[in-house]
Amino acid sequence: MLRFFTSGESHGKGLIALIEGIPAGLPMAADFINLELRRRQGGYGRGGRMKIETDRAEIISGVRWGKTLGSPISLLIRNKDWENWQAAMSEDQEFDGSVPPVTRPRPGHADLPGALKYAHKDIRNILERSSARETAARVALGAVAKSLLQELGIRTGSYVTSVAAVEARITPVHKNEDHLARLFQKAEKSLLRCPDAKATELMKQAVDRASARGDTVGGTFTVFIAGAPAGLGSHVQWDRKLDGLYARALMSIQAIKAVSVGGGAELAGMKGSQVMDEIFYSGKDKSYFRNTNNMGGIEGGMTNGMPVILNASMKPIPTLKRPLRSVDISTRKAFAAAYERSDVCAVPAASVVAEAMSALVTAEALLEKTGGDSMAEVIRNYNAYRKQVQDF
Amino acid sequence: MLRFFTSGESHGKGLIALIEGIPAGLPMAADFINLELRRRQGGYGRGGRMKIETDRAEIISGVRWGKTLGSPISLLIRNKDWENWQAAMSEDQEFDGSVPPVTRPRPGHADLPGALKYAHKDIRNILERSSARETAARVALGAVAKSLLQELGIRTGSYVTSVAAVEARITPVHKNEDHLARLFQKAEKSLLRCPDAKATELMKQAVDRASARGDTVGGTFTVFIAGAPAGLGSHVQWDRKLDGLYARALMSIQAIKAVSVGGGAELAGMKGSQVMDEIFYSGKDKSYFRNTNNMGGIEGGMTNGMPVILNASMKPIPTLKRPLRSVDISTRKAFAAAYERSDVCAVPAASVVAEAMSALVTAEALLEKTGGDSMAEVIRNYNAYRKQVQDF
Amino acid sequence: MLRFFTSGESHGKGLIALIEGIPAGLPMAADFINLELRRRQGGYGRGGRMKIETDRAEIISGVRWGKTLGSPISLLIRNKDWENWQAAMSEDQEFDGSVPPVTRPRPGHADLPGALKYAHKDIRNILERSSARETAARVALGAVAKSLLQELGIRTGSYVTSVAAVEARITPVHKNEDHLARLFQKAEKSLLRCPDAKATELMKQAVDRASARGDTVGGTFTVFIAGAPAGLGSHVQWDRKLDGLYARALMSIQAIKAVSVGGGAELAGMKGSQVMDEIFYSGKDKSYFRNTNNMGGIEGGMTNGMPVILNASMKPIPTLKRPLRSVDISTRKAFAAAYERSDVCAVPAASVVAEAMSALVTAEALLEKTGGDSMAEVIRNYNAYRKQVQDF
Amino acid sequence: MLRFFTSGESHGKGLIALIEGIPAGLPMAADFINLELRRRQGGYGRGGRMKIETDRAEIISGVRWGKTLGSPISLLIRNKDWENWQAAMSEDQEFDGSVPPVTRPRPGHADLPGALKYAHKDIRNILERSSARETAARVALGAVAKSLLQELGIRTGSYVTSVAAVEARITPVHKNEDHLARLFQKAEKSLLRCPDAKATELMKQAVDRASARGDTVGGTFTVFIAGAPAGLGSHVQWDRKLDGLYARALMSIQAIKAVSVGGGAELAGMKGSQVMDEIFYSGKDKSYFRNTNNMGGIEGGMTNGMPVILNASMKPIPTLKRPLRSVDISTRKAFAAAYERSDVCAVPAASVVAEAMSALVTAEALLEKTGGDSMAEVIRNYNAYRKQVQDF
Repeated sequence: MLRFFTSGESHGKGLIALIEGIPAGLPMAADFINLELRRRQGGYGRGGRMKIETDRAEIISGVRWGKTLGSPISLLIRNKDWENWQAAMSEDQEFDGSVPPVTRPRPGHADLPGALKYAHKDIRNILERSSARETAARVALGAVAKSLLQELGIRTGSYVTSVAAVEARITPVHKNEDHLARLFQKAEKSLLRCPDAKATELMKQAVDRASARGDTVGGTFTVFIAGAPAGLGSHVQWDRKLDGLYARALMSIQAIKAVSVGGGAELAGMKGSQVMDEIFYSGKDKSYFRNTNNMGGIEGGMTNGMPVILNASMKPIPTLKRPLRSVDISTRKAFAAAYERSDVCAVPAASVVAEAMSALVTAEALLEKTGGDSMAEVIRNYNAYRKQVQDF
Repeated sequence: MLRFFTSGESHGKGLIALIEGIPAGLPMAADFINLELRRRQGGYGRGGRMKIETDRAEIISGVRWGKTLGSPISLLIRNKDWENWQAAMSEDQEFDGSVPPVTRPRPGHADLPGALKYAHKDIRNILERSSARETAARVALGAVAKSLLQELGIRTGSYVTSVAAVEARITPVHKNEDHLARLFQKAEKSLLRCPDAKATELMKQAVDRASARGDTVGGTFTVFIAGAPAGLGSHVQWDRKLDGLYARALMSIQAIKAVSVGGGAELAGMKGSQVMDEIFYSGKDKSYFRNTNNMGGIEGGMTNGMPVILNASMKPIPTLKRPLRSVDISTRKAFAAAYERSDVCAVPAASVVAEAMSALVTAEALLEKTGGDSMAEVIRNYNAYRKQVQDF
Repeated sequence: MLRFFTSGESHGKGLIALIEGIPAGLPMAADFINLELRRRQGGYGRGGRMKIETDRAEIISGVRWGKTLGSPISLLIRNKDWENWQAAMSEDQEFDGSVPPVTRPRPGHADLPGALKYAHKDIRNILERSSARETAARVALGAVAKSLLQELGIRTGSYVTSVAAVEARITPVHKNEDHLARLFQKAEKSLLRCPDAKATELMKQAVDRASARGDTVGGTFTVFIAGAPAGLGSHVQWDRKLDGLYARALMSIQAIKAVSVGGGAELAGMKGSQVMDEIFYSGKDKSYFRNTNNMGGIEGGMTNGMPVILNASMKPIPTLKRPLRSVDISTRKAFAAAYERSDVCAVPAASVVAEAMSALVTAEALLEKTGGDSMAEVIRNYNAYRKQVQDF
Repeated sequence: MLRFFTSGESHGKGLIALIEGIPAGLPMAADFINLELRRRQGGYGRGGRMKIETDRAEIISGVRWGKTLGSPISLLIRNKDWENWQAAMSEDQEFDGSVPPVTRPRPGHADLPGALKYAHKDIRNILERSSARETAARVALGAVAKSLLQELGIRTGSYVTSVAAVEARITPVHKNEDHLARLFQKAEKSLLRCPDAKATELMKQAVDRASARGDTVGGTFTVFIAGAPAGLGSHVQWDRKLDGLYARALMSIQAIKAVSVGGGAELAGMKGSQVMDEIFYSGKDKSYFRNTNNMGGIEGGMTNGMPVILNASMKPIPTLKRPLRSVDISTRKAFAAAYERSDVCAVPAASVVAEAMSALVTAEALLEKTGGDSMAEVIRNYNAYRKQVQDF
């Protein structure tokens, strides 16, 4: 049972990420976590903060001499700008009122519903937590999950498929792990994490145009999990279906408004005879396989041995320089506010966060399958299961 | 804390649904549950089974004299065809082998991954549970949740927006509860649960054509929850975001491959200045409101007081009369199998199931907000919160 | 992840028990479950109901041809006296008021706090669920867990150690599995489930005396789990400590007021040098062992390879023929009520229930260790872990 | 839904405690948390570490300007001796092997089962987490829960009732809140947290004698929760019974081997007519009451309005100066090891930890009852429920 949580305010002392259930003996290095944090900070059209600070995770517990202990792993990502925020965000009551309250809720944010729910008259008390800054902690946790998956030969990756109205031209051959790996490698070299170089260029232009207009853009991306065996997840109960668990994890990312698996929404308009991934058997590989992957690697809420393909759509960032109309909660007077500093496009970052969340969900499903408290035990059980599948 | 589970095999004795956490004193009638079950059985292009049997739920526990007790509610939906399945599905080992095993996995089903995961050589041991028959139990549970929501003035409904390639023409004005109610009423009168009468006709033709070809079709639908106050769900932790919880619930429904909230995937291609639902205040209603609902009623993982709009895409039904290629797991020989009896289109049924799941998620979020163990207490706390929101 | 729930009112249609997470391929027979139900109904000094009915569980789902499917198992234990209770306990509102409400709360029962919590003016709405009748469903679930444990060579059992003021003379040698097995066998032959034949006789007399006085008695018992390997449970988080999980499970049984592990409360008065179970190694068995078992088989929240020893104390049954003072909730007038039909002693039954709960907790810890979805996989992983422990 | 976790190794950088679900607007000061940490460090017969360091919690998240935000609260308790442990406990692999492994498991600790479970050849990888040092984080979390309870007029406290063979003379009048408060006040002034001054003196002597012998002692204590209304917890499902939840929480504390409620184990030998707490009604207070509290404030798994009384027994500390026999896991050779520095008695500390755990369980049950996301809402719902109980 993998459990993981984040805590921390955007401009507070730092973010804490905690994960429990990772087996003992897993190699774990802050360097790898920091590499992942760095990937989240990349992209084109990012606001000022991404440039100010390079996030670094400090391992507080659960790791000794480069290996996990089996105990809860906690990570601290300090806010490097803390000294400028000490009074505004102090936990100490003596600073009460040291900066004026935020009373103007931004449309598209947690600001208004959060203020109403938690009865906060100062919207800062909401936005500090709802900020996408929190996803840094998720990426750190995802790095832990990825470390586990890597030991078992399971790879995750992602690539951006559209930004604003610009769609990448990507042959939708999602059945092939090597092909996915190549898309991923290309994405890693693109400022917008898009494997299509031409599209990247157009996306940059779209971002520039939006920026010039004081506007923001959204986009879409794909996450894949390659190398997982058939049989993760389960069909037996609604809350154990793996596609449902992935959907929850991705939809929980700030600004994501749509999630799909494999062919996703397009399958709805197609015929049954077109979309099903027919089943074949390779005597050489002693393995069932498919020549298509419309199902995105999931049938009946379980992995089917093909790469898992998850797609997500991100709305444009709701904090923009162009004024949006809203109402001041202290006066109930209308206003139209603009914001000076903001990201214009965060789709590449969101794709990295989605990788992290997908890795966490996959790791949880995997450990549910294998049990085990040490990597030796996990790997032993895992290999025995893979052999069982092969010999079935 | 609402907990709910289903159990039961498609051709077993029956389905059991269990839900715990419903407050005491809620009016509850088997009639209403049966009405909902009936709605699930409607539609156009359904297979033989829907005609054979009218599902009826029997309340086994948790209700007395027409009201909930506060104890777990369990419901039994008997399989009316059980007498023909007794030997094949008996729990008794003396029937072992009384019917030949199913060894031919159907593409698009849980058949193969389930057999590999659970090491079943007889695929019947998987397909009996993975069957969409299980959703009858979900609809029964959903009826319980709807009964609760109705007491608080919260209504759920759904309508089909496309079948095969036929898309309904529906003005996408999702901000208006009355408009949604009208769409729902129209849908209830349509064989395909589509509010657009012309589209319904075209959908029927599409189903007929698919049927004639031995093929199947999918489609899309929208679920709404109207009347919920701002502040259900939470932004504070990834697994408490209400959009994530809805996404899990809907994606867990058999054959659903995409889920979105509000404007969904279309928002990705739009500009930030276009999509945000600006905030206004009505002194008359003492209430914040929006003139648009692109966010689908959810901001920051919380309801914002606008109707919640959830969209889902269903792949075509994977059991078809046209042969699909697969491999017999006992011989590893290829075959191409066709199925005589099957639904051609189950989109209307899926929309009813999605209503049920959405009602359950909403009820859980609501009870987390109000606490309380009796309806009097729930309503008291609920009204006090609504007043708090109004007076904020 | 093992999840299990019961539902059902004492005089309702029946009890439903549901368990999910049991692997596929486990032999499962209603006969064995019924045998366990029969054990719960034994004892001396039981009231009328135990004689009226012999509980029988009907398997509704999750089992086919004598083996589990991997899907949720649901069991129905019908109320054989239902026809006499139809009006009083009908789910139908037309029976509302067909029998007068219960307005007199019994001290020592859930009656008063339950009525206040759930705002029930008819205490029957509480007592029907709080009744120890519910434990029949637990015993049925426990039988499922025991079936799993038996496949892995893990045995559970229990024996009564005192009734009223009569204490059995049992050499407290709890380190020896065979010894425990013999105590269990003797207990099974005793009307009071006490391995000490002389004590049994005195206990019967104590029960008779209490019965003659219109009074009731309590007692104590021990549950053991033998054959479990070291390493179930975990020290890493408070809610994963196995002793805590056992304590919750046993304390949740009606009328249990104290739970202890191994030497329990007596250890508090002893010296550290006396109580620790020193560690030895047997080259022959390739195994660490202890010559004492004061820790009751648990160190640091984990099994240590010795038999797990759990002790519980049951208060006397609170429904008695001697009048107890209470207050009518409809009039707030004092009264003193006596009850005609009741058990005088339920300690043997409680010990059987505690076995069931302990088996469920153990099965959960075991499956967390092994993972796996089929018995073949569970056993394979389990044996590999046992070898790992041996080779450590 | 209150969730709380601790992480951190005894000699690592520090302990992290995380709690989620605390409503917004609750006054929260590091000072109060530190006061509680200080209470845990008191007592007589403590080892060197307690003198070295005064624990201090730093609030990392979830609190601003002296009030909770509603977001997860995380606390960091630094290890003040970290500089001396940096190499031994570094997360960096370059320190691998910088200190020799611990290969000698101590009887009575997690050492051996933990090493076997997690396949650790260096027992330090277990003992660092299983150490009772972890309870500092629990006490910090408990302080958060107590802050919440205090706002609702619910007080928790504890007192030691025995150390070694010395039992305090305390009139067991547990029905009276003021009496409990006085016992608590006296306990706070006693070096052994025992309200009986004479017994305190004898306990000190017992500790001194044990210390002189190189031995250790255990003891017993009582925790109370006063001021909680009837109706927390529930009878409807085994895992919602409040006594079970308390039992889990207390049994999960290091070295606790027995837990009981109210009269506990002694009730088992008494007659039903003696032990039940008869029910009375006070027209003046508009309240049901009891003149006895043998049930310890819990009937049917729910609070009944009387003070909740929980008792626990602690085994002697297993690390002692007198040699205990064990086996080196690297050589499988027997040895007999003594430990230079250790607590002789930790019963007072354990009682403070048990207060914390009881406060957390109570807060969770309370928030389940009231719902609510701000203190204003929690208090409003709470008061309305109290009025409901009064008017019932």
